[in-house]
Amino acid sequence: MTQATSTATAGSPTRDRLLDAAAELFYREGVGVGVEALCRVAGVSKRSMYQLFDSKDSVLAASLERSAPAYLAFLLPPDDDDRAPRDRILHVFERLEEMAARPDYRGCPFVAVTAELKAPDHPASLVARRCKDELTAFFRREAEHGGAGDPELLARQLTVTFDGSGVRAVMQGQGLDGLALATATALLTGAGMDDTAPRTPETSG
Amino acid sequence: MTQATSTATAGSPTRDRLLDAAAELFYREGVGVGVEALCRVAGVSKRSMYQLFDSKDSVLAASLERSAPAYLAFLLPPDDDDRAPRDRILHVFERLEEMAARPDYRGCPFVAVTAELKAPDHPASLVARRCKDELTAFFRREAEHGGAGDPELLARQLTVTFDGSGVRAVMQGQGLDGLALATATALLTGAGMDDTAPRTPETSG
Repeated sequence: MTQATSTATAGSPTRDRLLDAAAELFYREGVGVGVEALCRVAGVSKRSMYQLFDSKDSVLAASLERSAPAYLAFLLPPDDDDRAPRDRILHVFERLEEMAARPDYRGCPFVAVTAELKAPDHPASLVARRCKDELTAFFRREAEHGGAGDPELLARQLTVTFDGSGVRAVMQGQGLDGLALATATALLTGAGMDDTAPRTPETSG
Repeated sequence: MTQATSTATAGSPTRDRLLDAAAELFYREGVGVGVEALCRVAGVSKRSMYQLFDSKDSVLAASLERSAPAYLAFLLPPDDDDRAPRDRILHVFERLEEMAARPDYRGCPFVAVTAELKAPDHPASLVARRCKDELTAFFRREAEHGGAGDPELLARQLTVTFDGSGVRAVMQGQGLDGLALATATALLTGAGMDDTAPRTPETSG
């Protein structure tokens, strides 16, 4: 449990409602949204909020933490998926293309919060970094299974592609039209994970 | 001349001082910085500011516009550089690696403003998009001269790499250690612009 959530009662309905509203509101309007507006939208009194969290910063960090599992579950293929590592990686980019085409897409929520806070040591920036590292770790595992030449490098390159594509969709105000998928595919092929690459047996991984 | 600058007297010393302070302050602390703080740091009265600009939004857009030429000049190689297109493209990523290693790096200023505003039609978002498109146009020209298979696609992929690398440096709170260069190199090679690719003569471009 992180510092951000340690002061809150995990799992209370009020807490969940506050954090869900916070995640949506901060994503849509930015981390500058005030406590008044947040509590109004969440239907929670300020008194209740401060009984659960010591500050808005703690609410922000806990809201990211709470939204992360669903976001990652949407992006990543299921564990028991039997597709090749290359296809499991491309699944993430297919999901990204899908999200980025939505008119309310404002980029990866972890990137957005970090960019807005401009404070690498803010509790929410630390949550964001940890969640982003989970995506990179997924890429790395698949790259290893797929026999990539340098799995760590490829995993970082794919993360860069994921984040840069999200940024592009936001900056251009439109979907990616296959750009994220094409870029990930080029990097996979360059790393030796093309369609015909043999899958490295689990025992040697 | 854009809408953002049309209400201001271009080139006045007060205007320049205000915009330089604004660019630095918004980059360091975010677009939420208030007019009071901005005028205090710039050493400009609010009255003077409002004589030059109709709103803080206009100051923000004009400050990005004013800072763009120096930023792009830092990133891009000189026009009369006689290196191969591949090396001219990699020059941009060498500059990025250099910037991203600085402790005060907060990502590409155009990306940062767009991510913070969450409003694609904001005048500053439009300036940011136009400036980013200049970088993509540079990549595209060089990709054409270098004989890339699909110069437009490669240019977009390199822009994604540039922005995703900047995001990574911010999220990890540390330099890129060659990641941006390695990713750009992999994409250039994948697009047929490797070390030994012949330079397409200007006349056929």
